[in-house]
Amino acid sequence: MTAVPDARRGAVPGVVARSRELVRPALVDAVGRLHPWTGEMAAYALGWSDVAGTPDPDGSEGKGVRQALAVLGAEAAGADGSAAVPGAVATELVHTFSLLHDDIMDGDALRRQRPAVWKAYGTGPAVLAGDALHAQAVRTLAEAPSPHAATAVRHLCGTLDALVSGQADDLRFEQRPWTGAGAVELAEYRSMAERKTGALLGGAIGLGAVLGGAPARTVAVLDRAGRHLGIAFQAVDDLLGIWGDPEVTGKPVHGDLRQRKKTYPVLAALASGGTAARELAVLLESPEQLRGAGPARAAALVEEAGGRAAARAEARRNLDAARRGLEDAALAPAAAGDLDALFTYVLDRSW
Amino acid sequence: MTAVPDARRGAVPGVVARSRELVRPALVDAVGRLHPWTGEMAAYALGWSDVAGTPDPDGSEGKGVRQALAVLGAEAAGADGSAAVPGAVATELVHTFSLLHDDIMDGDALRRQRPAVWKAYGTGPAVLAGDALHAQAVRTLAEAPSPHAATAVRHLCGTLDALVSGQADDLRFEQRPWTGAGAVELAEYRSMAERKTGALLGGAIGLGAVLGGAPARTVAVLDRAGRHLGIAFQAVDDLLGIWGDPEVTGKPVHGDLRQRKKTYPVLAALASGGTAARELAVLLESPEQLRGAGPARAAALVEEAGGRAAARAEARRNLDAARRGLEDAALAPAAAGDLDALFTYVLDRSW
Repeated sequence: MTAVPDARRGAVPGVVARSRELVRPALVDAVGRLHPWTGEMAAYALGWSDVAGTPDPDGSEGKGVRQALAVLGAEAAGADGSAAVPGAVATELVHTFSLLHDDIMDGDALRRQRPAVWKAYGTGPAVLAGDALHAQAVRTLAEAPSPHAATAVRHLCGTLDALVSGQADDLRFEQRPWTGAGAVELAEYRSMAERKTGALLGGAIGLGAVLGGAPARTVAVLDRAGRHLGIAFQAVDDLLGIWGDPEVTGKPVHGDLRQRKKTYPVLAALASGGTAARELAVLLESPEQLRGAGPARAAALVEEAGGRAAARAEARRNLDAARRGLEDAALAPAAAGDLDALFTYVLDRSW
Repeated sequence: MTAVPDARRGAVPGVVARSRELVRPALVDAVGRLHPWTGEMAAYALGWSDVAGTPDPDGSEGKGVRQALAVLGAEAAGADGSAAVPGAVATELVHTFSLLHDDIMDGDALRRQRPAVWKAYGTGPAVLAGDALHAQAVRTLAEAPSPHAATAVRHLCGTLDALVSGQADDLRFEQRPWTGAGAVELAEYRSMAERKTGALLGGAIGLGAVLGGAPARTVAVLDRAGRHLGIAFQAVDDLLGIWGDPEVTGKPVHGDLRQRKKTYPVLAALASGGTAARELAVLLESPEQLRGAGPARAAALVEEAGGRAAARAEARRNLDAARRGLEDAALAPAAAGDLDALFTYVLDRSW
């Protein structure tokens, strides 16, 4: 993968830890403003407590990349990172809400090696907790003591709209054929990933920039960079969903093929149109054949048809575009450097 | 029930129809901005189309009380009703979102004599459509071309927070005992109803008033009046859930008792502490006894223990408080009169 300069690579966990420290008190406050029951589910989802509500200091918290993006967005605009705090909190709340609801929609029973909230608390309660987090995210921004609060709310609205429509596309793709008329095109997949995965990454940086007083053009450039990062992240996720080490991903080998998920490597392979693509289509169209040795054969065919290389190229192209975006904007150099390193760090898995 | 002066009674459907006409184009636009799939589910939920997405001119639309409350809120502040349109749209979108998600949480398969969205489209899609409506409601206000847009967003945030926490209380009440330590107290039930049912009625009038330029004190008074209306509405709903005519309610006789729902008449009866209350508690604590003739006997015991009269008194008391609220504020007289009539119209069912 794209090499990370050593000096920067070392700096990244520092940015993430520093942002977490800056944001944590306000995030705890926001969760504390929820109804005690939805607050308990939120704390569980955030990895702060176990299912009985007991604090869990070793809980499997997320990496905190989004809050770091928000803090760096404000710093890139020349403001103090603390200006981004309401934006970072809103982003983390939206991220948690979307995981809660997506796990219901996708039927995913596990999240970070623990039962998903809908498995631990029930579907209805998980719907409610997601709604509470969604509402609290908007409220945190709307009531932020910032002259840019109203602009920030409008920015978040764009993010939420994109997030939900990306998820809608993803769910609808399941109903569409693998090949022929109505098959999902790569451009459609990219647009879905940009919204489902990229909107919140771009939204995080953009919110930080808005709250840091950046002009609209800078906000737009940073938001777009985050969206490219999201497309790259999704492509890497798709690669790991087929070829990732189960020890690292926590998911079965060839998992996405077993589940017949329409991902970038598979769609790219099918679009290549050769012999391997045709054999792959036959395999995918017959659920019975995807038992036993089928997934391994399908993975080999995806690779043979160029799907693996295409997904790697998609990730690289979009990471490059994200990093180039940082050069376009008139940003504070230290923050721009940190953002550049964080972008690379986000994709720093074996793919 | 409280008598409605004849002259006003006749005027109410006019207010509702006029508001619907004013709000409809913007509501259609807002739904049109959704992803086509979530938009289709929203149109179904709003009664505009059938489950195949075909327009249904005879669809069972809601009464449109909330949009009328918003329009009258602006007029009460001395503004033109059109100022309220973004608030009315946001209110209708939030109302629809909350019905979609509540039906999932409560396991209600029918809504207005049709399959609920989660029954018609699946649970995951219904969760998503609710999220899309929630986000679009905030966006409609945040992007409204009004100098009061940011204040309106903050007002809606308070409404959403209350709505979600009221629903959380309602779900949690199911887990609590009928009597003894931990039993649900009437004051808790009232607070739940104020938030679950009242917050959006108050929010509708308040949003209209905010967008009409009313001072904060007037907004607060109108919001509070709507919350009292909500408590009264819930008490009436509870009465109809036990004694309502199945032909009118579309629900089985004694339905809320069959489902062992903790409602105001039942809680008031249990709190009375007499012989009937004790016999009622025994019945409610044993699901087997609530088969066959059990529900009818339970209904008789609720009435004997004073629960029916208490719920009627609760409805009357809160309708009176809502109407008194209209006298407190310095409102445009015609709009105040229309609001007063609309309040009474909302409760104009046989109870």
